[in-house]
Order: sequence, then C-alpha cells, then structure tokens
Amino acid sequence: MRKVLVPLGARSYPVLVDGGLIDSVGPRCRAHGWAARCAVIADGNVAPRFGHRVITSLKDAGFNPTLITLEPGETSKRLRVVEKCYDALARHRLERKSFIVALGGGVTGDLAGFVAATYLRGVPFVQMPTTLLAQVDSSVGGKVGVNLSAGKNLVGAFLQPRLVLCDLATLSTLPEREYRSGIAEVIKYGIIYDAALFRRLERDMEALLKRDLAVLGPVVARCCAIKADVVGQDETESGLRAILNFGHTIGHAIEAITAYGRYLHGEAISVGQVAAGLLSARQCGLSTTEVERMRALFARAGLPVSIRLTKAQRMRLHAAMRLDKKVKDGEIKFVLARRIGEVAWGQAVKDTDIEAVLDELARNA
Amino acid sequence: MRKVLVPLGARSYPVLVDGGLIDSVGPRCRAHGWAARCAVIADGNVAPRFGHRVITSLKDAGFNPTLITLEPGETSKRLRVVEKCYDALARHRLERKSFIVALGGGVTGDLAGFVAATYLRGVPFVQMPTTLLAQVDSSVGGKVGVNLSAGKNLVGAFLQPRLVLCDLATLSTLPEREYRSGIAEVIKYGIIYDAALFRRLERDMEALLKRDLAVLGPVVARCCAIKADVVGQDETESGLRAILNFGHTIGHAIEAITAYGRYLHGEAISVGQVAAGLLSARQCGLSTTEVERMRALFARAGLPVSIRLTKAQRMRLHAAMRLDKKVKDGEIKFVLARRIGEVAWGQAVKDTDIEAVLDELARNA
Repeated sequence: MRKVLVPLGARSYPVLVDGGLIDSVGPRCRAHGWAARCAVIADGNVAPRFGHRVITSLKDAGFNPTLITLEPGETSKRLRVVEKCYDALARHRLERKSFIVALGGGVTGDLAGFVAATYLRGVPFVQMPTTLLAQVDSSVGGKVGVNLSAGKNLVGAFLQPRLVLCDLATLSTLPEREYRSGIAEVIKYGIIYDAALFRRLERDMEALLKRDLAVLGPVVARCCAIKADVVGQDETESGLRAILNFGHTIGHAIEAITAYGRYLHGEAISVGQVAAGLLSARQCGLSTTEVERMRALFARAGLPVSIRLTKAQRMRLHAAMRLDKKVKDGEIKFVLARRIGEVAWGQAVKDTDIEAVLDELARNA
Repeated sequence: MRKVLVPLGARSYPVLVDGGLIDSVGPRCRAHGWAARCAVIADGNVAPRFGHRVITSLKDAGFNPTLITLEPGETSKRLRVVEKCYDALARHRLERKSFIVALGGGVTGDLAGFVAATYLRGVPFVQMPTTLLAQVDSSVGGKVGVNLSAGKNLVGAFLQPRLVLCDLATLSTLPEREYRSGIAEVIKYGIIYDAALFRRLERDMEALLKRDLAVLGPVVARCCAIKADVVGQDETESGLRAILNFGHTIGHAIEAITAYGRYLHGEAISVGQVAAGLLSARQCGLSTTEVERMRALFARAGLPVSIRLTKAQRMRLHAAMRLDKKVKDGEIKFVLARRIGEVAWGQAVKDTDIEAVLDELARNA
C-alpha cells in the first residue's frame, strides 16, 4: 500500500493507494471516533457495484449508514440534488459528529463534499474515488462544489477530507472512455510539475491504457503526491495552486458551452491543455517540439486534441471564460508552460491570441 | 462611535455601533482593496428604505454594485432563494475579490452570508444589520446558513464578516413587534454572561422600549462585546459558544412546528428561555426567584412567556428537537442556568422534565 500525506497542519490527512481498500473503510472510520449515523453517497452506476461492500464494512464496524443514490452524470452536480441529499441526511438524523462518504467519481466527490461542508455547517468527510480522474485529482485537496447554469464549479467550499481511499481495483470496471478521460489529468501533472513523470508516461502509455497495476499504482500515487505538495503550500489558491488549472480555463468553457454533455471533463481539458500549450508557445517561449510532444501524448491516450467551433460558439466560449473564477477585474488569467515540467500562473492572454489558437485547433478537427 | 473587535487572529474584524453608519460603507470597503463589482442583498422592506443610500455610498467610492432584493420573511431563508442570488451574482459577474453586503435583519444576513461563503468558494462579506436582533446577535460571529423543511439552520457555514456596521438610526423605523423580538436576545446575554447587564435591563427596560439612544448604544455594544468574547474563545462551537443557544433548543423547535409563521424568532426564544429557566430550576438549582425575574423581564418587554401545545404538537416538538444540531448520539444537549449571569452547556435533560415544563408553560397560556 502506498500512502501520501497531504500536509495541512491539524487538518493533514492520508491518501491511501492500493487494491481492495474498499472493504477496509469501516475500521478506518472507526478509528476516528465519529458518531454511529453516517451516509454513503454514490451514483446509480457505482452504488450497485460497490455500495454493498462499503455499507457492509461500515455496519461491521458498528456504524449505522444510509446509502444515498444519485443519477449518474455531471448534470447531478447541482443545487437541486444537493437539497435532496440534505433531506435524506435529515431523515437519517445525521449529527455533527456523523460523517459522509463519497463513493464514486469527481461528480459524486464534489457534490458529496459540498453537502458535507454545509450540512450542520460541516461534518467529517471521506473520499473513496472509483475513477482514475477522481483518484488523481478531485478527491485530494478539498475543493468541493456544484455547477450553476452560468458556469462550472461556481458554487462551492474548501473542505479537506479526513481520509482518501484510492482502491485501484475499482478502476478495472471503469468504461474505457472514462478511464482515458482520467489520463488527461495524469498527463497534466507531468506538464505542470514533473518532466520525469511526463517521460514515464511517454514510455508506459500502452501499459497504463491496459490498466497494468505495476504502472498504475506508482503513477496514481505520484499524481496524488504532486497534488498534496501543491495543496500543502497553497490550500485556498492564493498563488501556486492555480497551476493545477492548466488547460482548465478553456476546458471549462468548452464544457459550459456544450452544456456538460458532449465532452467528459478529461476530454475537454485535453483540448484545453493543447490550447494552453499553443498559447504558451506564443507567449512563454514553449518550444514547438514540446507542444508537439504534449499533443502526441494526449492523442496516444485517445483524447481529443482539436475542436472546431462556429463563430457563435466562439463568442459563447469567450463569455464563459469571463465567468471563470480566475478572472480579476475583468481580466482572464491563464496558466502557461515555459517547458514541460514548469509552468507560470496568472498570465494575461490577448483575445487575438486565443482566436489564433482556436484557428489552429480547428485545423485538424 | 463604539467599536468592538471580534478577536480571531488574522480573521479579526471590527463591529462599529453608531447612528448614521450606513452612508460610510463605501469608503470603509474601499480601504480593503476589493474588486469593483459587488452586490448588496436586502429584502423588499429594507431595500426601498436604505438600499439607495448604500448603493450611492458604494458608487461614490468607485464600486459597481448590484442590488438583489428578496421577499421579506423567514421563508426566504432557503436554498431556492440562495440559487436565485447565485444567478444574480453570475449575471453581475462577481469575482473572487468582489464582496457581498448583507443589508437587513437576521434572515438577510444569514442567507447573504451563506451565499458569500459558497459563491466562488467564498468572497468577502460585510454585515449591515438593520434590526435589533441582527445587531446584537446574528451579524456577529460568522454563523450563516439557511433552513430546510426538516429544521432551522440545518445547512450553513462559518464565514466571519470582514466588517459589521450597526447603524442605530435604522432601528427607529423597525416595527414594534420586531424590535421587541430583538430584546429577547438582549436579555439572553444578561442571563448567560452578565448579571449586571440583566439588572440594567430590569432598570432601563422602559427607556430601551422607547429606543432611547442613550440606553440603546451601550446595550447594543455590550451585547456585541459579549458575543465577540465568546466567539473569540470558541469560533466553531466546540464548547463555550453553545451558551449562546440558551433557550434555542425549544425555541427553534417551536419555530419548526409552527412552520416559521406564528412566532418571530425572538418570540420563540423568549418562550424557549422561560422553558430553559424552568428546566434549570429542576436540574441546576436555579432559584425560583430568578426564574420569576427572568419571566417578568421577558413579559415587560412584551414577549410571550407561555405556550399551550396539543398532544400532537408536543410529539412534533420532541421530533424537531431531535433534529437539533446539538444532538450527540441521539441525546439532546441543553444550556441551563445556575444563576442569572452563569450557565452550563451540554446538559442532558429527561423527556419527563420537558413534559413537566411544557405543562407549566401551558398553565398561564
């Protein structure tokens, strides 16, 4: 078992990475001394697959869990669904010392985390990510929240989980497209922080796509360690943490203008990262060779690297970017790469450069 | 001008108490260096009365404010209204460094504070309480949130405001019943923390009811100072802060079973405090003389001190109390008084004692 500590003083917590962790959740929660009543939140795909094992483990450890099931998909990440969760928690009479377990992907973790951050002004929270994307990204770092029709993640909170259990065995049943979507975030860590990881991914992409545990284990743990390192230095994104948003400004806007339907998150940020690479070549001196290595690696992972937008869609894309949380006094701030493994945040970008990059992205679409 | 500091390290903030503070909000916010776009949230009674002055002060200081108007009343304190506020903030394109001003009573402050705590994962927040209850209680201390149909304040967060402006002049137009409702919280501070304040209220109740500024100014400032002292020692209610809930367990339950319609908050906790006094006499040795002094002071303030509940209502009252946030492993914890000026929190109370006290409360109803 690999163990990564997220270093946040009294709120530090471990991220455990291994196969078969699901069945250990009960005793691990017991060690915290929480109240008996608790809730497990999972969507309609994950609940039938793993819900029973989690509930059994909790019951065997003396807890009284209720299972709350969500409709699968990004459209569940909204306030109406949050309200339904609150009502279920009230019915099960959760208390301040009760805890909530998020079992599933990023949508479940973000939503359940927001519920945990706000129910009774905050209850303890455990992440059990069952997708690659959630294991390497959304389950670690304490960003939780939901979407508005005006934009993604516009509502939320910072709530660090008390424990993250990344059970690698749960990835074996993940649909191919979702698994590849997670690889977009894995590649991101190489670009923003770790050139050696990027080279390892260039070398081992085929084994990673086969979900070879000998590659997957160390890669997932390395991604969590990078995120822990960044979050430990800048929990609430006053600076450094912004680098985790590489590719996300355009990526989020693509998701917004397609109503979160056409692209999975990882697919949108794959296009977004290629766009950020092209912007970096224009503004930060990123070499065209490295832009090409980035594009090639996303393509090998089966991720989209181009997009063709109509004029109307481009206008909506710009409007969506202006709603991005990184906007300061109306100016959009980008994360750009100097080279693979090193990025700079808070970079202003000219609209004309964005237009030129959108032209480039359309060329091969 | 009286100034009380809420001592919370880097998150310390001042509570200013004076007449005419409304027109100073713009320059005071300017000093913080926040972004230009901001929002003022007020209800349909307060907005026409004071909204224009707040907006003018903000504009004159170079801000770009939008005014969001709520339906008046406790029924606005719910998630649907929170969502409408989010949508308005997105339309006005608020940014992370933007700020939200709550202008009004406790409902507005609690709701706007929850919006500020969660929009873009948190933006700066200013309280401008215009009711006595909000000035002495809800605007100070950082508890924000909304109600669920299952219970009051079940959803929320801790978000300390950056500034609290208690403009005493706004109290002159407050409806009589609302003003008296605020006095229930004023009396509470005497009971839980300050026997001298209680005696002062016994002496000056008539002047206070006439809203005599010579009495009102020091009383409001003293209540804020007590709250600041308590919150400074225990921000997130792991112990001491619970004393502020004196009378609130039964008071909240009364509000819940009457669907937040029949009683104002202060009226409900007036009954709740008399009930807590009677329980204290049974369990904590509070003298019957002091119970009677408490009851007499609430009565002189024109507040209800008795209630007659049907058997069905009593059952719903018990159920509502079990949903209280202070419940631990199914046991309801009460704040009880040893004497006027000194209370103990975390006290278990027998259901039979609650029944006996409800009988006493019904006797004079």
